[in-house]
Amino acid sequence: MENVKALIFDVFGTLVDWRTSIARETKAILGPLGHQLDWPAFADAWRAEYDPAMQEVRSGKIPFCKLDVLHRRNLDVVLGRNGITLDEPTARHLNLAWHRLDAWPDTSPGLKRLKRKFMIAPCSNGNISLMVGLARRNDLPWDAILGSEIAHDFKPKARVYLAACEALDLPPNEVMMVAAHPRDLAHAASNGLRTGFIFRADEFGPGKSGKPPTEPVDVSSTSVEDLAGKLGA
Amino acid sequence: MENVKALIFDVFGTLVDWRTSIARETKAILGPLGHQLDWPAFADAWRAEYDPAMQEVRSGKIPFCKLDVLHRRNLDVVLGRNGITLDEPTARHLNLAWHRLDAWPDTSPGLKRLKRKFMIAPCSNGNISLMVGLARRNDLPWDAILGSEIAHDFKPKARVYLAACEALDLPPNEVMMVAAHPRDLAHAASNGLRTGFIFRADEFGPGKSGKPPTEPVDVSSTSVEDLAGKLGA
Repeated sequence: MENVKALIFDVFGTLVDWRTSIARETKAILGPLGHQLDWPAFADAWRAEYDPAMQEVRSGKIPFCKLDVLHRRNLDVVLGRNGITLDEPTARHLNLAWHRLDAWPDTSPGLKRLKRKFMIAPCSNGNISLMVGLARRNDLPWDAILGSEIAHDFKPKARVYLAACEALDLPPNEVMMVAAHPRDLAHAASNGLRTGFIFRADEFGPGKSGKPPTEPVDVSSTSVEDLAGKLGA
Repeated sequence: MENVKALIFDVFGTLVDWRTSIARETKAILGPLGHQLDWPAFADAWRAEYDPAMQEVRSGKIPFCKLDVLHRRNLDVVLGRNGITLDEPTARHLNLAWHRLDAWPDTSPGLKRLKRKFMIAPCSNGNISLMVGLARRNDLPWDAILGSEIAHDFKPKARVYLAACEALDLPPNEVMMVAAHPRDLAHAASNGLRTGFIFRADEFGPGKSGKPPTEPVDVSSTSVEDLAGKLGA
Protein backbone atom coordinates (compact mmCIF):
# COMPACT_ATOMS: atom_id res chain seq x y z
CA MET A 1 0.00 0.00 0.00
CA GLU A 2 2.93 2.41 0.53
CA ASN A 3 3.52 2.00 -3.22
CA VAL A 4 0.23 3.62 -4.21
CA LYS A 5 0.91 6.87 -6.10
CA ALA A 6 -2.44 7.57 -7.73
CA LEU A 7 -6.12 7.12 -6.94
CA ILE A 8 -8.64 6.78 -9.77
CA PHE A 9 -12.33 7.17 -9.02
CA ASP A 10 -15.66 5.89 -10.11
CA VAL A 11 -17.91 8.97 -10.23
CA PHE A 12 -21.65 8.18 -10.62
CA GLY A 13 -22.79 7.09 -7.17
CA THR A 14 -19.32 7.10 -5.65
CA LEU A 15 -18.64 10.85 -5.80
CA VAL A 16 -21.93 12.35 -7.02
CA ASP A 17 -25.58 11.71 -6.14
CA TRP A 18 -26.94 11.05 -9.63
CA ARG A 19 -30.42 9.95 -8.49
CA THR A 20 -31.44 13.04 -6.51
CA SER A 21 -29.81 15.34 -9.07
CA ILE A 22 -31.46 13.74 -12.11
CA ALA A 23 -34.84 13.76 -10.35
CA ARG A 24 -34.38 17.48 -9.58
CA GLU A 25 -33.27 18.38 -13.12
CA THR A 26 -36.03 16.32 -14.74
CA LYS A 27 -38.69 17.92 -12.56
CA ALA A 28 -37.29 21.40 -13.25
CA ILE A 29 -37.44 20.86 -17.03
CA LEU A 30 -40.50 18.64 -17.51
CA GLY A 31 -42.67 19.98 -14.68
CA PRO A 32 -43.22 23.43 -16.22
CA LEU A 33 -44.20 21.69 -19.49
CA GLY A 34 -47.16 20.14 -17.64
CA HIS A 35 -45.75 16.66 -16.99
CA GLN A 36 -46.40 15.00 -13.64
CA LEU A 37 -44.15 12.04 -12.99
CA ASP A 38 -42.56 10.15 -10.13
CA TRP A 39 -39.24 11.98 -10.63
CA PRO A 40 -36.95 9.60 -8.72
CA ALA A 41 -38.57 6.72 -10.62
CA PHE A 42 -37.82 8.56 -13.89
CA ALA A 43 -34.18 8.86 -12.78
CA ASP A 44 -34.10 5.14 -11.96
CA ALA A 45 -35.64 4.25 -15.33
CA TRP A 46 -33.12 6.40 -17.22
CA ARG A 47 -30.27 4.88 -15.22
CA ALA A 48 -31.58 1.35 -15.82
CA GLU A 49 -30.83 1.77 -19.55
CA TYR A 50 -27.21 2.72 -18.78
CA ASP A 51 -25.51 -0.64 -18.46
CA PRO A 52 -27.36 -2.38 -21.35
CA ALA A 53 -26.42 0.50 -23.67
CA MET A 54 -22.73 0.29 -22.70
CA GLN A 55 -22.86 -3.47 -23.18
CA GLU A 56 -23.53 -2.88 -26.88
CA VAL A 57 -20.17 -1.11 -27.08
CA ARG A 58 -18.33 -3.59 -24.86
CA SER A 59 -19.59 -6.49 -26.97
CA GLY A 60 -18.63 -4.81 -30.24
CA LYS A 61 -22.22 -4.49 -31.49
CA ILE A 62 -21.71 -0.72 -31.92
CA PRO A 63 -18.48 1.30 -31.94
CA PHE A 64 -17.39 3.39 -28.96
CA CYS A 65 -19.15 6.71 -28.50
CA LYS A 66 -19.29 9.25 -25.69
CA LEU A 67 -21.63 8.40 -22.83
CA ASP A 68 -23.59 11.57 -23.70
CA VAL A 69 -24.66 9.79 -26.90
CA LEU A 70 -25.88 6.71 -25.03
CA HIS A 71 -27.60 8.87 -22.39
CA ARG A 72 -29.52 10.65 -25.17
CA ARG A 73 -30.64 7.40 -26.80
CA ASN A 74 -31.71 6.11 -23.39
CA LEU A 75 -33.53 9.36 -22.60
CA ASP A 76 -35.53 9.12 -25.82
CA VAL A 77 -36.54 5.55 -24.88
CA VAL A 78 -37.71 6.57 -21.40
CA LEU A 79 -39.49 9.70 -22.65
CA GLY A 80 -41.27 7.61 -25.29
CA ARG A 81 -42.36 5.11 -22.66
CA ASN A 82 -43.96 8.02 -20.78
CA GLY A 83 -45.58 9.43 -23.92
CA ILE A 84 -43.45 12.59 -23.79
CA THR A 85 -42.02 14.34 -26.83
CA LEU A 86 -39.66 17.30 -26.47
CA ASP A 87 -38.26 19.83 -28.92
CA GLU A 88 -34.58 19.34 -29.70
CA PRO A 89 -33.12 22.13 -27.52
CA THR A 90 -35.13 20.92 -24.50
CA ALA A 91 -34.16 17.28 -25.02
CA ARG A 92 -30.53 18.32 -25.39
CA HIS A 93 -30.64 20.43 -22.23
CA LEU A 94 -32.29 17.60 -20.29
CA ASN A 95 -29.71 15.10 -21.55
CA LEU A 96 -26.94 17.32 -20.21
CA ALA A 97 -28.48 17.04 -16.73
CA TRP A 98 -25.73 14.44 -16.23
CA HIS A 99 -23.20 17.31 -16.43
CA ARG A 100 -25.04 19.05 -13.57
CA LEU A 101 -25.03 16.40 -10.84
CA ASP A 102 -24.28 17.36 -7.25
CA ALA A 103 -21.41 15.77 -5.37
CA TRP A 104 -21.87 14.13 -1.98
CA PRO A 105 -20.81 16.69 0.68
CA ASP A 106 -17.56 14.89 1.58
CA THR A 107 -16.31 14.61 -2.02
CA SER A 108 -14.63 17.98 -2.63
CA PRO A 109 -12.94 18.31 0.80
CA GLY A 110 -11.87 14.67 0.65
CA LEU A 111 -10.34 14.99 -2.83
CA LYS A 112 -8.47 18.14 -1.79
CA ARG A 113 -6.85 16.20 1.05
CA LEU A 114 -6.03 13.20 -1.13
CA LYS A 115 -4.49 15.39 -3.85
CA ARG A 116 -1.77 16.53 -1.46
CA LYS A 117 -0.45 12.96 -1.26
CA PHE A 118 -1.64 11.25 -4.48
CA MET A 119 -2.34 11.98 -8.11
CA ILE A 120 -6.13 11.86 -8.48
CA ALA A 121 -8.28 11.36 -11.58
CA PRO A 122 -11.75 10.12 -12.43
CA CYS A 123 -11.90 6.71 -14.12
CA SER A 124 -15.56 6.91 -15.06
CA ASN A 125 -17.64 5.77 -17.99
CA GLY A 126 -18.63 9.44 -18.42
CA ASN A 127 -17.00 11.47 -21.19
CA ILE A 128 -14.39 14.19 -20.68
CA SER A 129 -16.80 17.14 -21.05
CA LEU A 130 -19.22 15.55 -18.58
CA MET A 131 -16.39 15.10 -16.05
CA VAL A 132 -15.27 18.71 -16.60
CA GLY A 133 -18.81 19.93 -15.97
CA LEU A 134 -19.08 17.97 -12.72
CA ALA A 135 -15.64 19.13 -11.59
CA ARG A 136 -16.36 22.81 -12.23
CA ARG A 137 -19.77 22.59 -10.55
CA ASN A 138 -18.51 20.74 -7.47
CA ASP A 139 -14.91 21.96 -7.13
CA LEU A 140 -13.23 18.62 -7.80
CA PRO A 141 -9.47 19.29 -8.15
CA TRP A 142 -8.54 16.56 -10.66
CA ASP A 143 -4.99 16.17 -11.94
CA ALA A 144 -6.32 14.76 -15.23
CA ILE A 145 -9.54 13.37 -16.69
CA LEU A 146 -9.08 9.66 -17.43
CA GLY A 147 -11.68 6.93 -18.05
CA SER A 148 -13.76 5.70 -20.97
CA GLU A 149 -13.02 8.47 -23.47
CA ILE A 150 -9.26 7.92 -23.40
CA ALA A 151 -9.72 4.12 -23.40
CA HIS A 152 -12.46 4.00 -26.06
CA ASP A 153 -14.35 1.36 -24.11
CA PHE A 154 -16.45 1.14 -20.96
CA LYS A 155 -15.79 -0.35 -17.53
CA PRO A 156 -15.57 -3.03 -16.44
CA LYS A 157 -13.52 -3.83 -19.57
CA ALA A 158 -9.85 -4.18 -18.60
CA ARG A 159 -8.75 -1.57 -21.13
CA VAL A 160 -10.34 1.28 -19.15
CA TYR A 161 -8.44 0.55 -15.92
CA LEU A 162 -5.17 -0.14 -17.75
CA ALA A 163 -5.38 2.96 -19.96
CA ALA A 164 -5.67 5.08 -16.80
CA CYS A 165 -2.55 3.47 -15.30
CA GLU A 166 -0.65 3.86 -18.56
CA ALA A 167 -1.58 7.55 -18.87
CA LEU A 168 0.02 8.12 -15.46
CA ASP A 169 3.08 5.93 -16.28
CA LEU A 170 2.29 3.68 -13.33
CA PRO A 171 2.07 -0.10 -13.03
CA PRO A 172 -1.41 -1.21 -11.86
CA ASN A 173 -0.23 -2.09 -8.34
CA GLU A 174 0.68 1.58 -7.77
CA VAL A 175 -2.85 2.72 -8.61
CA MET A 176 -5.95 2.38 -6.41
CA MET A 177 -9.42 2.22 -7.95
CA VAL A 178 -11.98 3.82 -5.63
CA ALA A 179 -15.67 2.99 -6.03
CA ALA A 180 -18.93 2.35 -4.21
CA HIS A 181 -19.55 -0.69 -6.42
CA PRO A 182 -18.00 -4.08 -5.67
CA ARG A 183 -18.14 -5.20 -9.32
CA ASP A 184 -16.04 -2.22 -10.42
CA LEU A 185 -13.48 -2.98 -7.70
CA ALA A 186 -13.40 -6.70 -8.47
CA HIS A 187 -12.56 -5.98 -12.11
CA ALA A 188 -9.92 -3.42 -11.10
CA ALA A 189 -8.36 -5.96 -8.73
CA SER A 190 -8.35 -8.64 -11.41
CA ASN A 191 -6.23 -6.25 -13.51
CA GLY A 192 -3.74 -5.74 -10.68
CA LEU A 193 -4.98 -2.46 -9.19
CA ARG A 194 -5.44 -1.74 -5.50
CA THR A 195 -9.01 -1.16 -4.35
CA GLY A 196 -10.77 1.35 -2.10
CA PHE A 197 -14.45 0.94 -1.26
CA ILE A 198 -16.72 3.83 -0.24
CA PHE A 199 -20.04 2.90 1.32
CA ARG A 200 -22.89 4.97 -0.22
CA ALA A 201 -26.08 3.83 1.45
CA ASP A 202 -28.29 6.33 -0.38
CA GLU A 203 -27.18 5.94 -4.00
CA PHE A 204 -30.38 4.17 -5.11
CA GLY A 205 -32.67 5.92 -2.62
CA PRO A 206 -32.46 6.50 1.14
CA GLY A 207 -30.77 3.52 2.75
CA LYS A 208 -31.47 1.29 -0.23
CA SER A 209 -27.97 0.33 -1.28
CA GLY A 210 -24.44 -0.05 -0.15
CA LYS A 211 -24.07 -3.66 0.83
CA PRO A 212 -20.46 -4.14 1.87
CA PRO A 213 -18.40 -5.69 -0.91
CA THR A 214 -18.34 -9.46 -1.07
CA GLU A 215 -14.91 -9.32 -2.71
CA PRO A 216 -12.04 -8.33 -0.42
CA VAL A 217 -10.82 -4.74 -0.81
CA ASP A 218 -7.62 -3.05 0.33
CA VAL A 219 -9.39 -0.18 2.13
CA SER A 220 -13.03 0.18 3.13
CA SER A 221 -14.40 3.62 4.01
CA THR A 222 -17.61 5.56 4.51
CA SER A 223 -16.71 8.77 2.64
CA VAL A 224 -13.90 10.38 0.63
CA GLU A 225 -12.76 12.16 3.79
CA ASP A 226 -12.73 8.87 5.70
CA LEU A 227 -10.69 7.36 2.85
CA ALA A 228 -8.25 10.28 3.06
CA GLY A 229 -7.80 9.66 6.77
CA LYS A 230 -7.23 5.94 6.26
CA LEU A 231 -4.61 6.64 3.56
CA GLY A 232 -2.78 9.16 5.73
CA ALA A 233 -3.69 12.16 3.59
CA MET B 1 -14.98 36.62 -29.21
CA GLU B 2 -17.94 36.56 -26.79
CA ASN B 3 -18.50 33.02 -28.04
CA VAL B 4 -15.20 31.71 -26.66
CA LYS B 5 -15.90 29.14 -23.92
CA ALA B 6 -12.54 27.40 -23.59
CA LEU B 7 -8.87 28.27 -23.83
CA ILE B 8 -6.33 25.61 -24.77
CA PHE B 9 -2.65 26.28 -24.22
CA ASP B 10 0.69 25.50 -25.67
CA VAL B 11 2.92 24.71 -22.70
CA PHE B 12 6.67 24.51 -23.53
CA GLY B 13 7.82 28.13 -23.82
CA THR B 14 4.32 29.60 -23.49
CA LEU B 15 3.64 28.60 -19.86
CA VAL B 16 6.91 27.09 -18.67
CA ASP B 17 10.56 28.10 -19.07
CA TRP B 18 11.97 24.85 -20.49
CA ARG B 19 15.45 26.24 -21.29
CA THR B 20 16.42 27.48 -17.83
CA SER B 21 14.80 24.46 -16.16
CA ILE B 22 16.49 21.86 -18.39
CA ALA B 23 19.85 23.59 -17.97
CA ARG B 24 19.39 23.51 -14.17
CA GLU B 25 18.28 19.86 -14.08
CA THR B 26 21.05 18.76 -16.42
CA LYS B 27 23.70 20.52 -14.38
CA ALA B 28 22.30 19.07 -11.13
CA ILE B 29 22.46 15.51 -12.50
CA LEU B 30 25.54 15.55 -14.77
CA GLY B 31 27.68 18.03 -12.80
CA PRO B 32 28.24 15.74 -9.78
CA LEU B 33 29.24 12.95 -12.21
CA GLY B 34 32.20 15.12 -13.28
CA HIS B 35 30.80 16.52 -16.53
CA GLN B 36 31.43 20.16 -17.40
CA LEU B 37 29.18 21.44 -20.17
CA ASP B 38 27.58 24.64 -21.38
CA TRP B 39 24.25 23.73 -19.74
CA PRO B 40 21.98 26.12 -21.65
CA ALA B 41 23.62 24.90 -24.86
CA PHE B 42 22.86 21.32 -23.80
CA ALA B 43 19.22 22.31 -23.29
CA ASP B 44 19.15 23.93 -26.72
CA ALA B 45 20.72 20.86 -28.34
CA TRP B 46 18.19 18.53 -26.69
CA ARG B 47 15.34 20.80 -27.73
CA ALA B 48 16.68 21.00 -31.30
CA GLU B 49 15.96 17.28 -31.72
CA TYR B 50 12.31 17.78 -30.65
CA ASP B 51 10.64 18.83 -33.86
CA PRO B 52 12.49 16.42 -36.18
CA ALA B 53 11.55 13.52 -33.88
CA MET B 54 7.86 14.48 -33.91
CA GLN B 55 8.02 14.86 -37.67
CA GLU B 56 8.70 11.13 -37.91
CA VAL B 57 5.32 10.53 -36.26
CA ARG B 58 3.48 13.23 -38.21
CA SER B 59 4.77 11.82 -41.47
CA GLY B 60 3.83 8.26 -40.57
CA LYS B 61 7.43 6.99 -40.50
CA ILE B 62 6.91 5.73 -36.93
CA PRO B 63 3.65 5.26 -34.99
CA PHE B 64 2.54 7.69 -32.31
CA CYS B 65 4.27 7.39 -28.95
CA LYS B 66 4.39 9.58 -25.86
CA LEU B 67 6.73 12.56 -26.04
CA ASP B 68 8.68 11.02 -23.13
CA VAL B 69 9.77 8.30 -25.56
CA LEU B 70 11.00 10.80 -28.15
CA HIS B 71 12.69 12.90 -25.46
CA ARG B 72 14.62 9.84 -24.33
CA ARG B 73 15.75 8.96 -27.83
CA ASN B 74 16.82 12.57 -28.33
CA LEU B 75 18.62 12.62 -24.98
CA ASP B 76 20.63 9.55 -25.91
CA VAL B 77 21.66 11.26 -29.17
CA VAL B 78 22.81 14.43 -27.41
CA LEU B 79 24.59 12.53 -24.63
CA GLY B 80 26.38 10.43 -27.25
CA ARG B 81 27.48 13.54 -29.10
CA ASN B 82 29.07 14.75 -25.83
CA GLY B 83 30.70 11.37 -25.14
CA ILE B 84 28.54 10.78 -22.04
CA THR B 85 27.11 7.43 -21.03
CA LEU B 86 24.75 7.11 -18.06
CA ASP B 87 23.35 4.16 -16.16
CA GLU B 88 19.69 3.49 -16.84
CA PRO B 89 18.19 5.00 -13.63
CA THR B 90 20.19 8.20 -14.13
CA ALA B 91 19.23 8.51 -17.80
CA ARG B 92 15.60 7.90 -16.89
CA HIS B 93 15.68 10.52 -14.14
CA LEU B 94 17.34 13.03 -16.45
CA ASN B 95 14.76 12.37 -19.17
CA LEU B 96 11.97 13.16 -16.73
CA ALA B 97 13.50 16.62 -16.22
CA TRP B 98 10.76 17.68 -18.66
CA HIS B 99 8.23 16.82 -15.92
CA ARG B 100 10.05 19.23 -13.56
CA LEU B 101 10.03 22.48 -15.55
CA ASP B 102 9.26 25.77 -13.81
CA ALA B 103 6.38 27.96 -14.96
CA TRP B 104 6.82 31.62 -15.81
CA PRO B 105 5.76 33.64 -12.73
CA ASP B 106 2.50 34.90 -14.29
CA THR B 107 1.28 31.45 -15.38
CA SER B 108 -0.41 30.10 -12.24
CA PRO B 109 -2.12 33.36 -11.16
CA GLY B 110 -3.20 34.03 -14.74
CA LEU B 111 -4.70 30.55 -15.22
CA LYS B 112 -6.58 30.86 -11.93
CA ARG B 113 -8.20 34.05 -13.19
CA LEU B 114 -9.00 32.58 -16.60
CA LYS B 115 -10.54 29.44 -15.08
CA ARG B 116 -13.28 31.51 -13.44
CA LYS B 117 -14.59 32.49 -16.90
CA PHE B 118 -13.37 29.74 -19.27
CA MET B 119 -12.65 26.04 -19.37
CA ILE B 120 -8.86 25.72 -19.55
CA ALA B 121 -6.70 22.83 -20.71
CA PRO B 122 -3.23 22.28 -22.09
CA CYS B 123 -3.05 21.41 -25.79
CA SER B 124 0.62 20.45 -25.78
CA ASN B 125 2.71 17.85 -27.54
CA GLY B 126 3.69 16.62 -24.06
CA ASN B 127 2.07 13.47 -22.70
CA ILE B 128 -0.55 13.35 -19.95
CA SER B 129 1.83 12.34 -17.14
CA LEU B 130 4.24 15.11 -18.13
CA MET B 131 1.41 17.66 -18.02
CA VAL B 132 0.28 16.32 -14.63
CA GLY B 133 3.81 16.67 -13.29
CA LEU B 134 4.07 20.28 -14.47
CA ALA B 135 0.62 21.12 -13.11
CA ARG B 136 1.33 19.67 -9.66
CA ARG B 137 4.74 21.38 -9.48
CA ASN B 138 3.49 24.78 -10.62
CA ASP B 139 -0.12 24.83 -9.36
CA LEU B 140 -1.79 24.91 -12.79
CA PRO B 141 -5.55 24.40 -12.22
CA TRP B 142 -6.47 22.56 -15.44
CA ASP B 143 -10.00 21.39 -16.12
CA ALA B 144 -8.65 18.50 -18.22
CA ILE B 145 -5.43 17.40 -19.89
CA LEU B 146 -5.86 17.50 -23.67
CA GLY B 147 -3.25 17.51 -26.45
CA SER B 148 -1.14 14.96 -28.29
CA GLU B 149 -1.88 11.90 -26.15
CA ILE B 150 -5.64 12.07 -26.69
CA ALA B 151 -5.17 12.91 -30.38
CA HIS B 152 -2.42 10.37 -31.07
CA ASP B 153 -0.54 12.85 -33.22
CA PHE B 154 1.57 15.97 -32.73
CA LYS B 155 0.88 19.65 -33.41
CA PRO B 156 0.67 21.31 -35.79
CA LYS B 157 -1.36 18.42 -37.27
CA ALA B 158 -5.04 19.43 -37.41
CA ARG B 159 -6.13 16.39 -35.43
CA VAL B 160 -4.57 17.69 -32.21
CA TYR B 161 -6.48 20.99 -32.22
CA LEU B 162 -9.73 19.36 -33.31
CA ALA B 163 -9.53 16.50 -30.77
CA ALA B 164 -9.27 19.11 -27.99
CA CYS B 165 -12.38 20.93 -29.26
CA GLU B 166 -14.28 17.65 -29.60
CA ALA B 167 -13.36 16.53 -26.08
CA LEU B 168 -14.97 19.73 -24.77
CA ASP B 169 -18.02 19.41 -27.11
CA LEU B 170 -17.23 22.79 -28.65
CA PRO B 171 -17.00 23.93 -32.27
CA PRO B 172 -13.52 25.32 -33.07
CA ASN B 173 -14.71 28.94 -33.15
CA GLU B 174 -15.64 28.69 -29.45
CA VAL B 175 -12.10 27.62 -28.51
CA MET B 176 -9.03 29.84 -28.34
CA MET B 177 -5.54 28.40 -28.81
CA VAL B 178 -3.00 30.31 -26.72
CA ALA B 179 0.70 30.11 -27.60
CA ALA B 180 3.94 32.04 -27.80
CA HIS B 181 4.60 30.57 -31.25
CA PRO B 182 3.07 32.06 -34.40
CA ARG B 183 3.24 28.75 -36.30
CA ASP B 184 1.11 27.01 -33.64
CA LEU B 185 -1.45 29.82 -33.80
CA ALA B 186 -1.52 29.89 -37.60
CA HIS B 187 -2.36 26.17 -37.71
CA ALA B 188 -5.01 26.58 -35.01
CA ALA B 189 -6.57 29.44 -36.97
CA SER B 190 -6.54 27.42 -40.18
CA ASN B 191 -8.67 24.85 -38.32
CA GLY B 192 -11.17 27.47 -37.21
CA LEU B 193 -9.95 28.21 -33.67
CA ARG B 194 -9.51 31.64 -32.16
CA THR B 195 -5.96 32.67 -31.31
CA GLY B 196 -4.22 34.29 -28.34
CA PHE B 197 -0.55 35.22 -28.54
CA ILE B 198 1.72 35.58 -25.49
CA PHE B 199 5.05 37.32 -26.04
CA ARG B 200 7.88 35.35 -24.34
CA ALA B 201 11.07 37.26 -25.06
CA ASP B 202 13.29 34.93 -23.01
CA GLU B 203 12.20 31.48 -24.20
CA PHE B 204 15.40 30.81 -26.16
CA GLY B 205 17.67 32.85 -23.88
CA PRO B 206 17.46 36.38 -22.49
CA GLY B 207 15.75 38.60 -25.04
CA LYS B 208 16.47 36.19 -27.89
CA SER B 209 13.00 35.37 -29.08
CA GLY B 210 9.46 36.54 -29.22
CA LYS B 211 9.11 38.29 -32.53
CA PRO B 212 5.50 39.40 -32.76
CA PRO B 213 3.44 37.01 -34.91
CA THR B 214 3.40 37.71 -38.61
CA GLU B 215 -0.03 36.09 -38.86
CA PRO B 216 -2.91 38.09 -37.40
CA VAL B 217 -4.14 36.92 -33.98
CA ASP B 218 -7.36 37.64 -32.11
CA VAL B 219 -5.61 38.75 -28.91
CA SER B 220 -1.97 39.67 -28.32
CA SER B 221 -0.63 39.77 -24.76
CA THR B 222 2.57 39.84 -22.75
CA SER B 223 1.67 37.30 -20.03
CA VAL B 224 -1.13 34.97 -18.93
CA GLU B 225 -2.28 37.64 -16.49
CA ASP B 226 -2.32 40.24 -19.26
CA LEU B 227 -4.34 37.80 -21.39
CA ALA B 228 -6.81 37.34 -18.51
CA GLY B 229 -7.27 41.09 -18.29
CA LYS B 230 -7.82 41.41 -22.04
CA LEU B 231 -10.42 38.62 -21.97
CA GLY B 232 -12.27 40.18 -19.03
CA ALA B 233 -11.36 37.42 -16.58
